[in-house]
Amino acid sequence: KMLGRVLCAVLFLGALQSLAGASQGHISVVLLGATGDLAKKYLWQGLFQLYIDQVSNGHSFTFHGAALAAQEPGQRLMFDVLKKLSCPTDEAPNRCAVLKDQFLKLSQYHQLRTAEDYSALSREIEALLRQEGLQEAGRIFYFSVPPFAYTDIARHINSSCRPAPGAWLRVVLEKPFGHDLESAQQLAAELTGFFREEEMYRVDHYLGKQAVAHILPFRDQNRQFLDPIWNRHHVERVEIVLKETVDAKGRTSFYEQYGVIRDVLQNHLTEALLFLLMELPANVSRAEEVLQHKLQSFQSLWGLEKSSAVLGQYQAYASQVQEELQQAQDYVSTTPTFAGVLIRSHSLRWEGVPFLLTSGKALDERVGYARVLFKNRAYCTQSDTLRDAGHSQCKAKQIIFYFGHGALNSPAVLVSRNLFRPVMPKDSWKEAEARSDLHVFGQPLSDYYVYSPVKERDAYSVLISNIYHGRKDFFITTENLLASWSFWTPLLDSISHQPLRLYPGGVENQHLLDFEMVSGGLAFTLAEPAELLNPGRQMPSDYRAVESKFRQSPLVSAWSEDLIPQLASDMEEAALRSVARSGQFHLALSGGSSPVVLFQQLARHHFAFPWQHTHIWLVDERCVPLTDAESNFFSLHRHLLQGIRVPYFNIHPMPVHLHRRLCVEEDRGTELYAKDIVALVANASFDLVLLGVGTDGHTASLFPRSENGLEGAPTVVLTESPAKPHQRMSLSLPLINKARQVFVLVLGKGKHNITTLLSRVGHEPRKWPISGVSPSSGQLVWYVDYEALLG
Amino acid sequence: KMLGRVLCAVLFLGALQSLAGASQGHISVVLLGATGDLAKKYLWQGLFQLYIDQVSNGHSFTFHGAALAAQEPGQRLMFDVLKKLSCPTDEAPNRCAVLKDQFLKLSQYHQLRTAEDYSALSREIEALLRQEGLQEAGRIFYFSVPPFAYTDIARHINSSCRPAPGAWLRVVLEKPFGHDLESAQQLAAELTGFFREEEMYRVDHYLGKQAVAHILPFRDQNRQFLDPIWNRHHVERVEIVLKETVDAKGRTSFYEQYGVIRDVLQNHLTEALLFLLMELPANVSRAEEVLQHKLQSFQSLWGLEKSSAVLGQYQAYASQVQEELQQAQDYVSTTPTFAGVLIRSHSLRWEGVPFLLTSGKALDERVGYARVLFKNRAYCTQSDTLRDAGHSQCKAKQIIFYFGHGALNSPAVLVSRNLFRPVMPKDSWKEAEARSDLHVFGQPLSDYYVYSPVKERDAYSVLISNIYHGRKDFFITTENLLASWSFWTPLLDSISHQPLRLYPGGVENQHLLDFEMVSGGLAFTLAEPAELLNPGRQMPSDYRAVESKFRQSPLVSAWSEDLIPQLASDMEEAALRSVARSGQFHLALSGGSSPVVLFQQLARHHFAFPWQHTHIWLVDERCVPLTDAESNFFSLHRHLLQGIRVPYFNIHPMPVHLHRRLCVEEDRGTELYAKDIVALVANASFDLVLLGVGTDGHTASLFPRSENGLEGAPTVVLTESPAKPHQRMSLSLPLINKARQVFVLVLGKGKHNITTLLSRVGHEPRKWPISGVSPSSGQLVWYVDYEALLG
Repeated sequence: KMLGRVLCAVLFLGALQSLAGASQGHISVVLLGATGDLAKKYLWQGLFQLYIDQVSNGHSFTFHGAALAAQEPGQRLMFDVLKKLSCPTDEAPNRCAVLKDQFLKLSQYHQLRTAEDYSALSREIEALLRQEGLQEAGRIFYFSVPPFAYTDIARHINSSCRPAPGAWLRVVLEKPFGHDLESAQQLAAELTGFFREEEMYRVDHYLGKQAVAHILPFRDQNRQFLDPIWNRHHVERVEIVLKETVDAKGRTSFYEQYGVIRDVLQNHLTEALLFLLMELPANVSRAEEVLQHKLQSFQSLWGLEKSSAVLGQYQAYASQVQEELQQAQDYVSTTPTFAGVLIRSHSLRWEGVPFLLTSGKALDERVGYARVLFKNRAYCTQSDTLRDAGHSQCKAKQIIFYFGHGALNSPAVLVSRNLFRPVMPKDSWKEAEARSDLHVFGQPLSDYYVYSPVKERDAYSVLISNIYHGRKDFFITTENLLASWSFWTPLLDSISHQPLRLYPGGVENQHLLDFEMVSGGLAFTLAEPAELLNPGRQMPSDYRAVESKFRQSPLVSAWSEDLIPQLASDMEEAALRSVARSGQFHLALSGGSSPVVLFQQLARHHFAFPWQHTHIWLVDERCVPLTDAESNFFSLHRHLLQGIRVPYFNIHPMPVHLHRRLCVEEDRGTELYAKDIVALVANASFDLVLLGVGTDGHTASLFPRSENGLEGAPTVVLTESPAKPHQRMSLSLPLINKARQVFVLVLGKGKHNITTLLSRVGHEPRKWPISGVSPSSGQLVWYVDYEALLG
Repeated sequence: KMLGRVLCAVLFLGALQSLAGASQGHISVVLLGATGDLAKKYLWQGLFQLYIDQVSNGHSFTFHGAALAAQEPGQRLMFDVLKKLSCPTDEAPNRCAVLKDQFLKLSQYHQLRTAEDYSALSREIEALLRQEGLQEAGRIFYFSVPPFAYTDIARHINSSCRPAPGAWLRVVLEKPFGHDLESAQQLAAELTGFFREEEMYRVDHYLGKQAVAHILPFRDQNRQFLDPIWNRHHVERVEIVLKETVDAKGRTSFYEQYGVIRDVLQNHLTEALLFLLMELPANVSRAEEVLQHKLQSFQSLWGLEKSSAVLGQYQAYASQVQEELQQAQDYVSTTPTFAGVLIRSHSLRWEGVPFLLTSGKALDERVGYARVLFKNRAYCTQSDTLRDAGHSQCKAKQIIFYFGHGALNSPAVLVSRNLFRPVMPKDSWKEAEARSDLHVFGQPLSDYYVYSPVKERDAYSVLISNIYHGRKDFFITTENLLASWSFWTPLLDSISHQPLRLYPGGVENQHLLDFEMVSGGLAFTLAEPAELLNPGRQMPSDYRAVESKFRQSPLVSAWSEDLIPQLASDMEEAALRSVARSGQFHLALSGGSSPVVLFQQLARHHFAFPWQHTHIWLVDERCVPLTDAESNFFSLHRHLLQGIRVPYFNIHPMPVHLHRRLCVEEDRGTELYAKDIVALVANASFDLVLLGVGTDGHTASLFPRSENGLEGAPTVVLTESPAKPHQRMSLSLPLINKARQVFVLVLGKGKHNITTLLSRVGHEPRKWPISGVSPSSGQLVWYVDYEALLG
């Protein structure tokens, strides 16, 4: 064993000596996990490629494989891998054979387990450098190990294996980088204790894929064509897709903890998304600029919600998990193996453009791409049957970054011929043959300018070369990583108990995983074929809206999904009647959370609502500035007013903010509002007042035992809320009771107790202000959902 | 000759007697222009069809052909036509032969020339009624005569040929109904002198086309499917198209006066447009409701501008006109034979959806249709090569009302199978064979549910039947007609000297007439192949906006058509810069008439303007309520604010109306506004102030020799105007001069004198307040149009 080590060291030095004349210094590459899967499959080959590319460029190298295994078996395992390294096809076989021989001589195995092992490694490197009279340039530590091992290794490197002063340290980290924002922050904090930010190279191998890596250069080199069209006015949608045919079999112990969103969307697809979405920096090769623009792009994204995603799981997954993780037959996994996610930006450039991210296992084909589809703004006067094919403006216009596999079976960049002929760097991308027999994205390949790499390169060899060159823009910084987790974690939290659609896998899936954009979110296109994983409660549509009586007044009750549309329709009808009668509709709206869905319903579905003739009043307001997120008016503005067109003059926020102060009596805000009402609303009788009910029986901002507003004049009052912000302004009960119609909306289980109570008590406004609502000559209707009514 | 008449009368009565037992009364149909082209081609056949349909339903009929020709030749001509009437294919030949014989017997020719001729006709009808003991039900007069003859005929009918009291009169009018709004109003006014509105039936034969007539019933019967999708969220675009292969040869004397917009778009395509666009009345068969909703739809349309249309003329047209109208070789016709027009609505339902109307002569095919294309909201996870065709949600979704001809060669209603299976009335529409060999609108016919009429009926026979039944919803009312002319006339006026694209005609046109939506208007897709028809006056675009100096500041000058877009673009650029710098853009706008075109330009063409981040302030205001038409804010609201989306909180009207009184000092409106400015605008320095200049040199509401606002503190002041309303509120000159940028807009010949004066005088704000505008650390730019600059 000792002999082996000596022999190896001799060979090692022999190879190094052949590099006499190298003067730019020596680089030691340490591959941790040297006998693992990733190392076998990609990393050693990538290191060999690095050696081939750089051997004559001035640096000398040694390669140190390391693992937990003892010297002898580890060494054997490792050299079994090294012997199988293949020569690149563009390399002369003779030269390659010599280089491979040298590479093997420069490679050594080390058992790295204890702090002492790391010190020993460091001493060996130092001895070698001394012996050969070499200057140290730097050390690369490549972590191809499970994340739980990171901290220990990092500690050892930091304390015992840093290079000599003046030489650099680069540590290369492989995902997963945490499981959610919190764990990612924790891991990042630990690593930051050992390494400086510029020393860390977090790999997302997608950044090494040639078509992904070319997105920014493409945008930069084609600014003249893209500047006018790279925006919401021209882009119809963007799709970023990674489909796999394999499933998670054999990897469920990893997969069950992560799922498709953490495995693919949070990292790979998000990086491609950002390259498409970000504002283009002046200099796309400056890593800091690119990073800044990436981080700004995250800021421009709408937060994800449960409804932003559709999720699936292939049918065999459950039994694979049961088998591999030795779970019981009734174990139910909620890990998605398929996800479609709708991402939207509120930037001026992208507002309204859907970005669809999709990935899944056990799908029909293996393919990855990012596709930008442009809007069809043309009308072609000639019938398509009588038109020569040409570059018609009525054909689809798209730009596709094809990551690989699929029909093209190679990375590629495709640009529709009716868009523009792109500028491509001739040394790295060549124009490909225009085959018309092959159809991609609905068109023959001959409809596109198609470019493929001059030399197809594996992602890892690209990344290893970039580590060597210190190009940090190909790696994920801590900030970037945490921004991505901040973005994805709320979705991951909200879907943890979401039902998954089961799919058979492969081409059998057919239309089962097709999905659609529906009112701001996604939904599967086909109705659920009765295989919900979470069959839970009965569907609301089984019930029809029930009409009866509540407190002697009409009651409309249904699941809230049906109740809200019903209420919105009834409001529209009231509005149309009122406008027909008087030319105007005076509507007083309450704040709180219940009306938000109603507002959205009105804004999105009621196109015939006579908003032009509607006056909007507030039932009550919190004493905060109108631009404060707590303000009732702010919520009303956000969810309703900004989606419709009410004339400015017809909008009447409560004057809680006068002379730059809030609800001060002497500013007479209540008087002002009351005067406005008297001046504009005939007989101060609103056409419709919408109210809610609090769990304490309050309505408007009239609270139990309030000193103001429960009786007396029909006016506007200042009141005190038991909850913050305490100060409120409100219509008084007598003013509300002058209305022609009053609708009371009560939603949710939380209101069940007060609903039950109200069904029993009489007119006791001092105890329960809502019980005092009783329009003197108008109509009162209760809209109570089943959850509030039935508990 | 006398004998002929007697003989004819005898035959005539004989046929009528065979109808003994008819008791619902007698109808006399008078066809004026009985030997003209339309009568020959459609009208007699339509009347014969009416007779066949109604002969046994209770009314008796006589048919009176009339023309200017004398009795004998006219009668011969007319009976030559009648003898050729064909039997409908679904009629038993025997019965039809008998009916045709009867129809001929019931038909008479009359020379109608003088008032006496009309009286004679009336007497004959009365005599007949007496003789046969028939009650008169009504008289139909069908005007198939040139419009110049209308007034005389109408006068004669009204004075000498009205039916007996208790019976109805229906006069049927054929287009053209005028040449523009003015002529249409004049013609309408003349006719209104003779007939009541309910007596007039204006024919647009498109309303008799089965597929057009079925649009409203289709929308009504399919409410359940259409309600959620018939809006801007789901509809991508609407195309309404009538393409013809024929050209105008032989009809240029008519065509040269009208052109394609008056001939086809203003009437036929507009009617189809309205059926698609209008809010659906509760009862689609009530003519008044339909009319009301139609008129409301017109109100919701954006006004058309020059840029809304692309125009063409087929190459042979010029020589046809020269030949037929005996014009000189150098005569240039500016009549379009092809037009594409972009129509937009600002209704909540349709905002942002393009409605494209297209028609032309000498095109590649004869076809007419209205096509509603829905947005693709789906993502199909499975590759299209691996998917069964089925009803994939990723295929195009469309509804097409196919008027006739073209590939289908029949009227039809097509609904994509992935949309819904429509409800169709089984008695009138039948499902057609799903042929997959035929492709329409980019898809095989088998992708659609296809319905065709059970019985294909010619438009005129449909219309004649509707006249008989008094169904006025199939005809154009005066209000409807004038609303349409109001809508189209501004476009017709603005394009009268517009260049036309020449096209060769037929399939040779290829892509020459393809057009695209470009910044709110239309433009041909292919660059102009150097064949402008109208080199006439030099186009403003020949001049580039001239930049030089005015009063030591930059001057931009051009014709106002170019100046306004330039100013709007410069404002957008300023806004984007400001938002990039500070997140906000504080814009102070002036009142008056000059900015109105600017406001419209901004509202309609600047989609990238960062309105969400813009604060709108007023430079000055008149002391009138904000809802008063004289208020600057009212005009700003009408022309700009209601077309864009500025958050409510960012709109800052001047508080001229406090405590329900106007500009009272003690209400401290000026102080309030100044405080708001200080609170929101950094350093009280507006990002951009837009000013105008009065003929007296005033700017904002700062008038010569004003006591306030010309010097002193940067604040808000009350001032006095020499013109009404005298009281004003205004930013002071020192406050204006704190701005980062000030743009001064000067338009029109009326400003030439003051412009000339200002070019000579120095800083004399007490004489000419505008001369005091001189931003202390900002930039001043003058935008002066050629009329103001050059006189």
